[in-house]
Amino acid sequence: MSKIKPRVLKGFRDYLPTTMIPRQKMLATIEATFQRFAFVPLMTPALELLEILKGKYGAEGESLLYSFEDQGDRQVALRYDLTVPLARVVAQYGELTLPFRRYQIAPVWRAEKPQRGRFREFSQCDGDIVGSADMAADAEILQLACSLLDDLGVANYTIQVNNCKVLSGLMRRIHVDEGVAEAGVLRTIDKLPKIGREKTEELLKNESGLSSEQVAGIFEFLSIEGDTDEKLRKLDGLFVDGGGRQGVDELRQLFRFVRALSLDGLITLDLSIARGLNYYTGTVYEAFLRDLSGIGAVMGGGRYDGLIGVFKGQEVPAVGISLGIDRLLQGLVELKLLEESRSVAQVLVTVFDAESAPHSARIAQDLRRGGVACEFYPGAAKLGKQFRHAERAGMGWVIVLGPDEQAQGKVQVKDLETGAQEAVPEKELVGYLSGRVG
Amino acid sequence: MSKIKPRVLKGFRDYLPTTMIPRQKMLATIEATFQRFAFVPLMTPALELLEILKGKYGAEGESLLYSFEDQGDRQVALRYDLTVPLARVVAQYGELTLPFRRYQIAPVWRAEKPQRGRFREFSQCDGDIVGSADMAADAEILQLACSLLDDLGVANYTIQVNNCKVLSGLMRRIHVDEGVAEAGVLRTIDKLPKIGREKTEELLKNESGLSSEQVAGIFEFLSIEGDTDEKLRKLDGLFVDGGGRQGVDELRQLFRFVRALSLDGLITLDLSIARGLNYYTGTVYEAFLRDLSGIGAVMGGGRYDGLIGVFKGQEVPAVGISLGIDRLLQGLVELKLLEESRSVAQVLVTVFDAESAPHSARIAQDLRRGGVACEFYPGAAKLGKQFRHAERAGMGWVIVLGPDEQAQGKVQVKDLETGAQEAVPEKELVGYLSGRVG
Repeated sequence: MSKIKPRVLKGFRDYLPTTMIPRQKMLATIEATFQRFAFVPLMTPALELLEILKGKYGAEGESLLYSFEDQGDRQVALRYDLTVPLARVVAQYGELTLPFRRYQIAPVWRAEKPQRGRFREFSQCDGDIVGSADMAADAEILQLACSLLDDLGVANYTIQVNNCKVLSGLMRRIHVDEGVAEAGVLRTIDKLPKIGREKTEELLKNESGLSSEQVAGIFEFLSIEGDTDEKLRKLDGLFVDGGGRQGVDELRQLFRFVRALSLDGLITLDLSIARGLNYYTGTVYEAFLRDLSGIGAVMGGGRYDGLIGVFKGQEVPAVGISLGIDRLLQGLVELKLLEESRSVAQVLVTVFDAESAPHSARIAQDLRRGGVACEFYPGAAKLGKQFRHAERAGMGWVIVLGPDEQAQGKVQVKDLETGAQEAVPEKELVGYLSGRVG
Repeated sequence: MSKIKPRVLKGFRDYLPTTMIPRQKMLATIEATFQRFAFVPLMTPALELLEILKGKYGAEGESLLYSFEDQGDRQVALRYDLTVPLARVVAQYGELTLPFRRYQIAPVWRAEKPQRGRFREFSQCDGDIVGSADMAADAEILQLACSLLDDLGVANYTIQVNNCKVLSGLMRRIHVDEGVAEAGVLRTIDKLPKIGREKTEELLKNESGLSSEQVAGIFEFLSIEGDTDEKLRKLDGLFVDGGGRQGVDELRQLFRFVRALSLDGLITLDLSIARGLNYYTGTVYEAFLRDLSGIGAVMGGGRYDGLIGVFKGQEVPAVGISLGIDRLLQGLVELKLLEESRSVAQVLVTVFDAESAPHSARIAQDLRRGGVACEFYPGAAKLGKQFRHAERAGMGWVIVLGPDEQAQGKVQVKDLETGAQEAVPEKELVGYLSGRVG
């Protein structure tokens, strides 16, 4: 038989069941949390008109778009994130009343150079509140961030918050120009925790062309210490008016909520959080698992008051959260909060011979109707083979219907962990197993 | 502000929350059913190498592929279905032990001419058992089909089963050539319920070039009547050897399982079921909602023993089910088994003024921690506006924290349906609402 070599595209991957089983559990928890916060689901197409996506991600981002001409000679592209499609949707449908809160879990595509842990297709999970400029919305997003991690079972985490207006105020203080120059400096500051102070200083001087005084001004700002209240008081002294002042006021309002929610032990002000993206306009934040700091931020987000206006023609404020699904899953597995698994069922119903196979099928049907998940072995293979199948899948129980048991209206239930075997009347099987299966 | 017109590509659509909320409920039920049958989740990339997809869907299908050249000059295409990617995965990963049963819910893309109810992006939901040629596997898929509909609350449905080998046997009997000619005739037979006998006869004569005797042979076959057992006995007389004989034997084995599962009232033999796709090799079937026959089949599938071999180099038998997600959702809404909805929460926590907003946020936090889903209005808008927001979203309760209530450690709870209002101590609020909210 001639064959085509089975393979995936470079930079793409299959999620096999061992990964998908804990991933689905994680996503079910995440969706439940979103819904408890009244976020509603939304789904947008994978393909958008290129003009919808263009000009939103900077030159570098734009070069990574999977764009092509479709059969109708339209320039189209696979979505790059979930935020721009949300902005389009909010502008497009008048029936969506504001404030509007939605979540979306879906893949995005970026033609990046593949490297360890970086793929060209990956899933994003975003939640956003659209239509409120009030810090109450930002606080709601931070409360959500904490609940997501709480519900996933993470005990030890920290969320570090900053405000882009404060960073921009700092840029004005040290005379860095708005726009490209500022964006470059902020991107470098964002790398500080990864690359260290020395390398950061070098980049600020050589790449952004800052003077020693300007660099010193940045590190003076970044070295502001103390708890959140102390930091805010020190910032009061630095910014008396303009955007920087507004940023400090926003942070103070935000932390009133944080304290009322008793989240001030988890959420702290970190003046070095800058976020890479240039559409943020206010609050920015990142969440870290304290026991796994090496894997980087597992969530992040912020306020972007300018993006929706591009489609709407008038400014619509918005604030959001984005979860790094793959990184979070990796973290939860490493923390043993989730287990990789090969099966979603704990019970295998075997087939003794072709003659009795329909009878076995009915036993499986009874179990399922009784709420016990089970696999039915589809064919009369040797029993040893069927047992090995159950063991490889990590199942706990195997049901065997030999001719004797069948004659007595019973089945043999074997506990694969202990090796114990028991004859159980068919009618009692659901009760017997539902008490034992987790 | 200059703006870009917000719009979706022709043939694509957004799923707004009113549709997504019941859709997510439906999918959660479907996933739970798949898992009770021990099907494990799988996820494959949206983009595949073109050579993986080519030659699988016939000339017409292939012309609908969204294919393009990627940044690395590779010919790639968006997936057209979930079956070919499954076949690739089974051939690619030795660690997947057979029999392997997986489900996948994901969008596929076909550049069809858009028309009412037909889109270029739509979701498929597939379940397959790979690695068993035994009719026990086909029976398992049919049991699953029934459970999916049972669990979705559909009381009145029918599943019509046939076998491709029987149809091929018929083609040999009336001297229609294997391959292109046979495929054309079967595609026409498949249209019979839609276009009627007269038009079918016309197509068979004019398009497939059949003689009057050949057409008569087909309708003689299709008019075989009686219950399943009677039909099988009549087929025994028609097919004494060859593939047709094997098909009848398979059907007889399959219906042994159907009877043992007491599903013979729901699953019947229908000799006109042919399915359009040419990769089916044995059992084929379609499921219909009896109260909504106009919407067509809501599920369908069958056995395809040849497809995986294209990637594996040796034959691997497989049988599967495919759910028409959109059609099913439409049906469940029409049957009032699911409701369109604008909100996933029944409770809105309002904000009385900026000063007390953090206190309101804490009330929302208490409710959520107590398991009561609620929305927190993000900002101190006029109360009337906040109430209208709750009404538009179809919520049942609104919480108000006026200064008096706050002083007393209470909140006002207003039932939007009855208009009744009650002051409830903060500490009793979770209990008060969790008893009332569905």
